[in-house]
Amino acid sequence: MSVKIENLDWMSYRELVENGQSRILIPVGAIEQHGLHMSLNPDVLIPQHIACQVAERAGGMLVAPPIAYGYKSQVKSGGGNFFPGTTCVSSRSLEEYVYDIILAFAEHGNREFILINGHFENSMCLVEAADRVVKQARLSGKEVKVILLSYWDFISEATVDKVFPEGFSGWAVEHGGVLETSIMLKIHPELVDMSRAVDIPPAEFPPYDVFPPDPSWVPESGTLSSPSKATAEKGEWILDECIEKIATTFS
Amino acid sequence: MSVKIENLDWMSYRELVENGQSRILIPVGAIEQHGLHMSLNPDVLIPQHIACQVAERAGGMLVAPPIAYGYKSQVKSGGGNFFPGTTCVSSRSLEEYVYDIILAFAEHGNREFILINGHFENSMCLVEAADRVVKQARLSGKEVKVILLSYWDFISEATVDKVFPEGFSGWAVEHGGVLETSIMLKIHPELVDMSRAVDIPPAEFPPYDVFPPDPSWVPESGTLSSPSKATAEKGEWILDECIEKIATTFS
Amino acid sequence: MSVKIENLDWMSYRELVENGQSRILIPVGAIEQHGLHMSLNPDVLIPQHIACQVAERAGGMLVAPPIAYGYKSQVKSGGGNFFPGTTCVSSRSLEEYVYDIILAFAEHGNREFILINGHFENSMCLVEAADRVVKQARLSGKEVKVILLSYWDFISEATVDKVFPEGFSGWAVEHGGVLETSIMLKIHPELVDMSRAVDIPPAEFPPYDVFPPDPSWVPESGTLSSPSKATAEKGEWILDECIEKIATTFS
Amino acid sequence: MSVKIENLDWMSYRELVENGQSRILIPVGAIEQHGLHMSLNPDVLIPQHIACQVAERAGGMLVAPPIAYGYKSQVKSGGGNFFPGTTCVSSRSLEEYVYDIILAFAEHGNREFILINGHFENSMCLVEAADRVVKQARLSGKEVKVILLSYWDFISEATVDKVFPEGFSGWAVEHGGVLETSIMLKIHPELVDMSRAVDIPPAEFPPYDVFPPDPSWVPESGTLSSPSKATAEKGEWILDECIEKIATTFS
Amino acid sequence: MSVKIENLDWMSYRELVENGQSRILIPVGAIEQHGLHMSLNPDVLIPQHIACQVAERAGGMLVAPPIAYGYKSQVKSGGGNFFPGTTCVSSRSLEEYVYDIILAFAEHGNREFILINGHFENSMCLVEAADRVVKQARLSGKEVKVILLSYWDFISEATVDKVFPEGFSGWAVEHGGVLETSIMLKIHPELVDMSRAVDIPPAEFPPYDVFPPDPSWVPESGTLSSPSKATAEKGEWILDECIEKIATTFS
Amino acid sequence: MSVKIENLDWMSYRELVENGQSRILIPVGAIEQHGLHMSLNPDVLIPQHIACQVAERAGGMLVAPPIAYGYKSQVKSGGGNFFPGTTCVSSRSLEEYVYDIILAFAEHGNREFILINGHFENSMCLVEAADRVVKQARLSGKEVKVILLSYWDFISEATVDKVFPEGFSGWAVEHGGVLETSIMLKIHPELVDMSRAVDIPPAEFPPYDVFPPDPSWVPESGTLSSPSKATAEKGEWILDECIEKIATTFS
Repeated sequence: MSVKIENLDWMSYRELVENGQSRILIPVGAIEQHGLHMSLNPDVLIPQHIACQVAERAGGMLVAPPIAYGYKSQVKSGGGNFFPGTTCVSSRSLEEYVYDIILAFAEHGNREFILINGHFENSMCLVEAADRVVKQARLSGKEVKVILLSYWDFISEATVDKVFPEGFSGWAVEHGGVLETSIMLKIHPELVDMSRAVDIPPAEFPPYDVFPPDPSWVPESGTLSSPSKATAEKGEWILDECIEKIATTFS
Repeated sequence: MSVKIENLDWMSYRELVENGQSRILIPVGAIEQHGLHMSLNPDVLIPQHIACQVAERAGGMLVAPPIAYGYKSQVKSGGGNFFPGTTCVSSRSLEEYVYDIILAFAEHGNREFILINGHFENSMCLVEAADRVVKQARLSGKEVKVILLSYWDFISEATVDKVFPEGFSGWAVEHGGVLETSIMLKIHPELVDMSRAVDIPPAEFPPYDVFPPDPSWVPESGTLSSPSKATAEKGEWILDECIEKIATTFS
Repeated sequence: MSVKIENLDWMSYRELVENGQSRILIPVGAIEQHGLHMSLNPDVLIPQHIACQVAERAGGMLVAPPIAYGYKSQVKSGGGNFFPGTTCVSSRSLEEYVYDIILAFAEHGNREFILINGHFENSMCLVEAADRVVKQARLSGKEVKVILLSYWDFISEATVDKVFPEGFSGWAVEHGGVLETSIMLKIHPELVDMSRAVDIPPAEFPPYDVFPPDPSWVPESGTLSSPSKATAEKGEWILDECIEKIATTFS
Repeated sequence: MSVKIENLDWMSYRELVENGQSRILIPVGAIEQHGLHMSLNPDVLIPQHIACQVAERAGGMLVAPPIAYGYKSQVKSGGGNFFPGTTCVSSRSLEEYVYDIILAFAEHGNREFILINGHFENSMCLVEAADRVVKQARLSGKEVKVILLSYWDFISEATVDKVFPEGFSGWAVEHGGVLETSIMLKIHPELVDMSRAVDIPPAEFPPYDVFPPDPSWVPESGTLSSPSKATAEKGEWILDECIEKIATTFS
Repeated sequence: MSVKIENLDWMSYRELVENGQSRILIPVGAIEQHGLHMSLNPDVLIPQHIACQVAERAGGMLVAPPIAYGYKSQVKSGGGNFFPGTTCVSSRSLEEYVYDIILAFAEHGNREFILINGHFENSMCLVEAADRVVKQARLSGKEVKVILLSYWDFISEATVDKVFPEGFSGWAVEHGGVLETSIMLKIHPELVDMSRAVDIPPAEFPPYDVFPPDPSWVPESGTLSSPSKATAEKGEWILDECIEKIATTFS
Repeated sequence: MSVKIENLDWMSYRELVENGQSRILIPVGAIEQHGLHMSLNPDVLIPQHIACQVAERAGGMLVAPPIAYGYKSQVKSGGGNFFPGTTCVSSRSLEEYVYDIILAFAEHGNREFILINGHFENSMCLVEAADRVVKQARLSGKEVKVILLSYWDFISEATVDKVFPEGFSGWAVEHGGVLETSIMLKIHPELVDMSRAVDIPPAEFPPYDVFPPDPSWVPESGTLSSPSKATAEKGEWILDECIEKIATTFS
């Protein structure tokens, strides 16, 4: 039986969730440019993939349909919100949408939720949604627990060293770089065209942000570092570790 | 090249949309029970399928990632919001989310949008979002046009007669019935289990609504009429007509 | 003693509502053009009239001041929001206003509400307001019940046949047509000028909506069908049936 | 022809407002207890009456349907929001509703609005709505002007002396007292029952407010001073002055 | 130990507030022009000063950091929102900010709050915030009490007579006049420059408001009456009375 | 003349800002526990101090009154929102408040703003406020620029090495540690009591967040690392660098 909630009929779903016995994993991503060599949806597909693998490995978990449109891309983490194709929503929209979705799942008897985030900029919206959900649910006697995680926080230094044998430029510039590209090569190679991967030094930014953003701060390709050393094998290493650790932590 | 925006890299997308030459099709659905015999996602998968087919046939169109969570299911059109698995959001959330998404696409230079709705209850939220988007975009000099359609409004009486040779009980009770089931049998047979299709008379309702809803008004299965006469062939008739007409109307 | 709440002093009102013994009827309408031959307020006056008659017949009911400004007129049901005189509010405003009003009446001890709608476009705003009120009131221990009805849903086929002996063009085009005009001729003849009633065929619309709306879709007069066969007698038939049935259903 | 907008057909209305030649008067009131001797609607009926009289006297003015539900009654000006029958909305609801209504009238070409307030507590919500309307309309090139007045601010000291020959206790305690009662005796004697008018000294309050409000601060009848000296003649004096002055000021 | 909450470490604060034994005083002001002779912050500094003095005198009270930015200045009470330097927020922002702050203090166990207002225009926003806080806190079992006061309401007629030996022009025009200037001379003489105090007659206004505001209604200096008779001694009289009375009332 | 806007009279302020010649620095902080040894306001006082010093050094800058209440403290950056004394607001409140304040300053002719953040958790609210301000101001023809910075991002590795000669545990656990304590010892020694500084190892956290937060994750003192090695001299090093660099960058 599918771990994806949307593929179940409601009675099968009801059986799986009754008595709050299941954890609901909710992938949250973004539609955001990831360079010339990759599609706009890694931030959706990666957390969804991880969620499904975790659910299959750990048991007692179901995966909700992903939230595809995320919070506005920022220059220093996602290239900026001015790229064609980057299609993002306001913090209020994302917060309210996530808030409503969790409360709706809570109505079915679910009490534990794991938000699996694939887009850095979503973080604070998810924090606020989670905080409000917990308090609102409590008003009607429901003790809800929301875990919030970004998958890359489960990658160990050892794996980083293995993936970046020539040195790691830091998480800040990994947007569209080796990390995401490797994972996509592993799970959706048809959405990656390595022949268009640019070879650029890691982006460098001043220690502040400016609005409206200044496109000249960002490499033309939209990636913040070079994806050219990405391989499906590296993607597998990363995924294996994330999936294993998340599954273990929350089993 | 894919008609799905999320599968494109940003430069390819930019080329396709420049000068406002593309129409953006946005499928809007819901996660909602559709009876014992079917998954929770027909309202998402059907408009997404139609959108992709229309885009391929008509040209000059791109399909946005679907909006999966829709407005609260109502008793007389979707069985009601109390079914486990039915996972819906408030009108404010849906309206704001759609509003932001259209404005984000408008920032890329797009000026024409077609919202393809798969969930009746979404209608008024989409009306409000569309009305507000048009006015807001105009403030910054963008003349945006939003088409709003529900695919079933393109089905002719002739097709209805063909699909329901023993007589049509009306659109109002088609939730999870022959119409949606036939389409799903055609496009996602793996998500339908006809052995669990109930055989019930069409639901009858009093001429008003009540809140909180009264579950005893709704057939136990959650469908408002019997899906047992559904076939993939009927689904094909319906889809062919919808896709053909929508593509022709908006070419 | 008046059935209109606004005409009572507070102590008389308190006596009538204590122990939640009264149902509160709330007429909800709109200020919207209804053709050259009629005033802008049928959607307010008709549900208010019905509410008062129902309250007098059924007993145990009180009528709240009507909510006069409703949700934006739509082309295919009300001619569109661009007509001078059509003066409508956003969904958020209407929803919040209705929500607050019901909660205020609930503070007085009332537990049952009947929203009598006279403007099709209000429907989903009232659904959302009702749904939220029920949940919010429950948080402070109040079990509130909200009935939502549009008066025309109580008209039988027999009456339709009698009112439209030459055939009925359907509810969709009844805006400013025989139905509303006949009722107004009965209850407010001074607001109807049949000499200005246009004689036009029923409007026909494509199976979708467009924003901004296209005024050329709508007959110049603003009515969607001809009111020329309207009579006060027909109005009486319709009202008698609606009032009788609503009073009986909720006694 | 009626000065009430709702009684006009849209074409007649259009003719009257074209080129922004009319001022739109919008009465804003409240449903609020006004003692044992009076109905709940003086705050609606009085400004509506004044608006109609002003429009007839001054010309070039039209009266919008009144906004009946106003901001929450406060202890020291309206007795408090805890009285049965007092049925009020939040500041957000009132502000948004008024904001939307003015913008809708501005769409018809109107540029000058006079809000005639009958309920003290509405004041700041109307200020905020007016301020926001002016700025929002300007974004689309419309220069809108909103006048905000409370009718009692047009009463002269001379009239006060005449109405209160034994001395005036101050505006603050006029809720349900001689002023409002006299006006209601003049315009709606059927809604006043002087046999139930209490004879009490003017209410006295500490120099602060408390939430939740303390009902023991308020006279049991709900009026803040005695209405027993009210007469229709005094009502006429007051109305004559208000109507005359408002008409003159804004002609 | 400081009465200012922000100067305490959290453990000392916890000890002082446990069992709800402390009242929390929250000064609410505005950044608003007060004439050529005075800084922009009297509406913040005065209530903060009073709060601290009251807390020290009465005991069992703590003073929260002041809310510095208040609701939009109005022509007839603060000169209007168009003066450079007058830096104000919308009613929604102020209401939400205050609402959140009180709820946050309530989470620490506090149950009684005194909002000390220094800016007339804030009043209704504080009313709404207080009303909503009380209701929201009650949903989670907390009985919160909010006192709302404007310090000038504690000044007696005797003091007014003493401060204005040549006659008092009324509270309405005291903006930037003798009252506020005298207090500032007492508590922050470095922020007053009496050599720039204008000598003007009290402002006179028509009995209505207009939006957008008309700057010609307001004296050029921005004060609504002359501050030239202000002295530190008068400021002391006023403060002594306010502090004494507030401390006594709420001890 | 003071660089603090609130200390200026409006005419002096007007002169300083005309033609958009000044940059407005807005300190944004929080009221949040910072351990047993320190007051609740370092996140307010530090950015305010830096802002004033920068303004004095760079010229052409003015400092706005600080925004004292910030976004909810998070476990892994600020100890969590459950500490008594930590008094925080929702993202919506903070965002709206900051948004309104910047727009108000823009009305005075100002076009460049520098938000100096002292509380990590504020970041995304400030991003959203800045993004919305820029777009809204543009609608009325104002090109506004907003710089957003957190002062710690200007500290060099060299300074870090100097301040932490025994090794740096990372920014993540600097809450209430050597960094903030040293600065406070320099600028407000009266608010620090080193005798109460705890000696604890840096906090360690799992790679995810949980709501409701788990207090057992946080050291009892509320600091995330030991402040015991803090000195005023280190504070001076840090401040000198931040002030110098910020002043230089934006001169």
